[in-house]
Amino acid sequence: MKVVFVTGNEKKWAEVKALLPEWIELQRMNLDLMEIQGSRSEIATFKCKQAASMIDDRNVAIITEDTSLGFTALRNLPGPYIKHFLDAIKHEGLNNLLVAYEDKSATAYCTVAYWNRMETDEPLVFEGSTAGSIVPARGPALFGWDPIFEPVESSVPKKTFAEMTMSEKNAISHRHRAFAQLATHFENSLKQ
Amino acid sequence: MKVVFVTGNEKKWAEVKALLPEWIELQRMNLDLMEIQGSRSEIATFKCKQAASMIDDRNVAIITEDTSLGFTALRNLPGPYIKHFLDAIKHEGLNNLLVAYEDKSATAYCTVAYWNRMETDEPLVFEGSTAGSIVPARGPALFGWDPIFEPVESSVPKKTFAEMTMSEKNAISHRHRAFAQLATHFENSLKQ
Repeated sequence: MKVVFVTGNEKKWAEVKALLPEWIELQRMNLDLMEIQGSRSEIATFKCKQAASMIDDRNVAIITEDTSLGFTALRNLPGPYIKHFLDAIKHEGLNNLLVAYEDKSATAYCTVAYWNRMETDEPLVFEGSTAGSIVPARGPALFGWDPIFEPVESSVPKKTFAEMTMSEKNAISHRHRAFAQLATHFENSLKQ
Repeated sequence: MKVVFVTGNEKKWAEVKALLPEWIELQRMNLDLMEIQGSRSEIATFKCKQAASMIDDRNVAIITEDTSLGFTALRNLPGPYIKHFLDAIKHEGLNNLLVAYEDKSATAYCTVAYWNRMETDEPLVFEGSTAGSIVPARGPALFGWDPIFEPVESSVPKKTFAEMTMSEKNAISHRHRAFAQLATHFENSLKQ
């Protein structure tokens, strides 16, 4: 079974490849996709359909992935627009958005859209989430907002995503939880 | 000359109709258009092209309009995403985003895309802007973020957009400035 994972990010590619069953013929493709405004699920679905429109072979299934970081005090914004905020105002600016609030809690979401056009009329959407809070940056600034997100489930002393080893992060991350659901979907469909 | 202005908003329709030359056969159309993420000009251009794809008659020119509100301290965000922020966190929440900063200045933008497919390969983009600052809400909450935007050019005592009469607002508003440019474009093209 041929499946394309659309990503330009080496780290995501390595992570996802390790998570999905070996019998999946996973290929990577870097497409320039547009992001729409809307709910996480609308954004993910649109992106996956757009990728599909660029891949003629209907026997190839498609995976796209979207990340969102919602601040509870801001009613789950910046949410899907977090990338633009991180680029513009950096870690300190993201912390500053919450200065007016005691509640620094936030939720990280990974929304995966999967479309096998031979199976379903619309992409399937799987979502994983991790609860945490926004803190002043700690740990190496190698990957997006990882230094300012401290998951609730992190051990004592508390660590941000950036302070965790890869395996510590993988055990609780929004991305792993979303792709674990996709892996389960693949296993179930194999049994049928 | 037939021109369609795509809007679902009665107020904008009345405003724009009054601003454009009478010899333009202006029609209103309410289309369900998608908004993309990106720069103001990318968002406006995409929206106009999308409207065009729904209007078969290439003799009909198309106008779409986008509004953005950029906070200087947030490097011009929420910007094109202001609508989502206003819906979610209201006037008070928008003020709270700036609690960490002394600089409460902001710029309102109206980005108009105009496409006569018989004339140009791509939509033309006209932008008007108004400088001001974000203040606690004053005046009737009838139109979006008008109560929390106090233009620099407002007379003393300072007024928010919501406290102004229609003609006071029109004299300095981002929307009027953008459509005035489009009106000039129409006049120039008539002379040729």
